[in-house]
Amino acid sequence: MPLTYGIVLFRMFDVLDVMGPTEVLQFVSASFKTDIVYIAETMEPVTTRPTFPSMNPFNNSIYPLLPPTHTFETAPELDVLIIPGGPGWRNPSLNATLDYIRKTAPNVKQIITICTGAALAGRAGIMAGKKATTNKSSWPSAISANPNTTWIPNARWVEDYSSEPPTWSSSGVTAGLDLMLHWVEETYNKENATNIAKFMEHVRITDPSKDPFARNETVGV
Amino acid sequence: MPLTYGIVLFRMFDVLDVMGPTEVLQFVSASFKTDIVYIAETMEPVTTRPTFPSMNPFNNSIYPLLPPTHTFETAPELDVLIIPGGPGWRNPSLNATLDYIRKTAPNVKQIITICTGAALAGRAGIMAGKKATTNKSSWPSAISANPNTTWIPNARWVEDYSSEPPTWSSSGVTAGLDLMLHWVEETYNKENATNIAKFMEHVRITDPSKDPFARNETVGV
Repeated sequence: MPLTYGIVLFRMFDVLDVMGPTEVLQFVSASFKTDIVYIAETMEPVTTRPTFPSMNPFNNSIYPLLPPTHTFETAPELDVLIIPGGPGWRNPSLNATLDYIRKTAPNVKQIITICTGAALAGRAGIMAGKKATTNKSSWPSAISANPNTTWIPNARWVEDYSSEPPTWSSSGVTAGLDLMLHWVEETYNKENATNIAKFMEHVRITDPSKDPFARNETVGV
Repeated sequence: MPLTYGIVLFRMFDVLDVMGPTEVLQFVSASFKTDIVYIAETMEPVTTRPTFPSMNPFNNSIYPLLPPTHTFETAPELDVLIIPGGPGWRNPSLNATLDYIRKTAPNVKQIITICTGAALAGRAGIMAGKKATTNKSSWPSAISANPNTTWIPNARWVEDYSSEPPTWSSSGVTAGLDLMLHWVEETYNKENATNIAKFMEHVRITDPSKDPFARNETVGV
């Protein structure tokens, strides 16, 4: 059983991409030893706030902060590396984040990407030769950034076992809940997943090929 | 149009009850001036960690922190008061939180409760004579704590206009996304709600009477 999940944080992450898996795992933790670490470049709380004021034309203050528990230097060994998405995946100055992902990926038992987290993982170079999916609204930019991945356009989530570690990728935001509940079913037990979905009152999609937001084109190697 | 949304934080809140509305409103903020303030008893980051070590038998470290932006004393005037749920709603020592809710509720244009947030609002005394719904898994404890509310057992969400301010209450966790998207549709515009759901890849329930997690019994005054 995995013990330690690590979630990578970066500026302009998507909060639900992080908190969806967090909530599901928090329920798991009632029955199984489970730790989550939140890992970022520094210990400064990470914000969803856009990098440039021009991306916030109304000068809104609507951007929550999430304090990391570790930096890329102090993070413990992980069993599962979770890579969330969010508009920040396109940020040109993500070198430390990409380095951490690149360095950590070979040492974990499982990689999970949520939403455009697959595109960020791709930028780190760990998705080459794999099949994956991502947010269908961000499809063109995500796939053009990562031409060495086979992108599946009609999938709620995709499981790739072609190389170690296995890599699961979900479609946008809420699809991450379906991936995570399937993860619980496969890793812990089915009853646990059913109970968590019931408590969250989440109407699951349990068949990964059922994608209400599917695109038509298959793209990739 | 509402400008300022306030979300009340308390120990053992449910992260998705807070972050679901946050994410939806963050999308709204691309088109409309929108602020969120996170309000708690002190400026200390608020944790989802159980109050008693006995509630965390595996000694997990899986509990994210959320830094408030204001205390109950410094919070600005709100247009919309959002009350999330989570196991902490039952905490006996919530007097400051209940006082804040009780004092603030009459001055806002709208109250929104998510999940067992309705039970917390009930404890503050602002749900008497109203109809509401809440998490169906927490049904017995939520309704027995609030016998002066008419609890609707088969509703994804409930809208009560019987007294000012209008009070909307959602069922558990994910039902809060459906309530919030309906809120966007009614308050801003339908296209906005449709686009947000599409970006989040959230399969909406748009009819509040369609409740996949309905209970049978109607309870209340």
